Amino acid sequence: MADGAHHEKIELITRNIRTFPDFPVKGINFKDVCPILKEPSALSAVVDLFEEQTKQSFPQVDIIAGIEARGFLFGPLLAQRLGVGFVPVRKKGKLPGPTVSLSYALEYGVDVLEIQEDAVTAGQKVVLIDDLLATGGTMHASCKLLEKHQAEVLGCFVVIKFKDLKGEEKLHDYRVFSLLQC
Amino acid sequence: MADGAHHEKIELITRNIRTFPDFPVKGINFKDVCPILKEPSALSAVVDLFEEQTKQSFPQVDIIAGIEARGFLFGPLLAQRLGVGFVPVRKKGKLPGPTVSLSYALEYGVDVLEIQEDAVTAGQKVVLIDDLLATGGTMHASCKLLEKHQAEVLGCFVVIKFKDLKGEEKLHDYRVFSLLQC
Repeated sequence: MADGAHHEKIELITRNIRTFPDFPVKGINFKDVCPILKEPSALSAVVDLFEEQTKQSFPQVDIIAGIEARGFLFGPLLAQRLGVGFVPVRKKGKLPGPTVSLSYALEYGVDVLEIQEDAVTAGQKVVLIDDLLATGGTMHASCKLLEKHQAEVLGCFVVIKFKDLKGEEKLHDYRVFSLLQC
Repeated sequence: MADGAHHEKIELITRNIRTFPDFPVKGINFKDVCPILKEPSALSAVVDLFEEQTKQSFPQVDIIAGIEARGFLFGPLLAQRLGVGFVPVRKKGKLPGPTVSLSYALEYGVDVLEIQEDAVTAGQKVVLIDDLLATGGTMHASCKLLEKHQAEVLGCFVVIKFKDLKGEEKLHDYRVFSLLQC
């Protein structure tokens, strides 16, 4: 993509993100991607840039995996552009049939993520997708969950990365791509 | 669309749905749409048929609204095909900023759905989307929530309708379209 077109898309996406202070808890400046979803050209720009990045860096991708719930908003769009399948990474108890699960520590307590047992086969190459990368706990657990099932995580895509929350440090074993940084 | 092509798409979608008995609770034969997501041609067929139905019945649509979480998997795809925006209908506490909410009765207890206050404006025409229509409680509450904000619900789209659970009776004020019935 020409630099000018790339820059225009980043500008368009940036204009369609808004900040809500103290959500979901005090001290967090939450980045809301809902305006992107409401503006078809902005949503299309996000998918364009993810598609471009995948073709450049991971042309061998087999599957796009999206993290519940906001990863579901972007993942199937990217998967359709690339002509590959999509699999959902969900919270405990949401997926029917045999599942593989992984628990991971949160600030207070533990959470569990699941994929269906046949979501990926050994050796399949996966790109993970979510809207935001904060501390990286859920993204890291999703990578480990896919690896537990012998899939290979090629990279992690997010719309926005919070630089101060050091998610990328937690994900140092993985290649992380964010369209915007804040 | 020619009848033959339509029929082939329905067949393809049907082959990519599987049934899990007793999920999420005993007595329910859950229909799992995950195989559709994993097979790009099946997912594309779902979006083709939703797009065709929208253009035939609701060419005036302004917004596609998807119900958390599996409505998020199909809604943005349809919205992008039509060149309109997408808004998420979410469970309580998930959306940042000012919201409009509506509580509705479940078999045991009460649930609450929310949209952002600026998700729709008065008079906007909305098509609602989800994967399954069972008893219709969540879909009905989503219609009422959008109407509470003076939006007009043109129709409700689902991949599969459970005929015995009488969701369509609950939604008798609305036009319901399902790709498959079981």
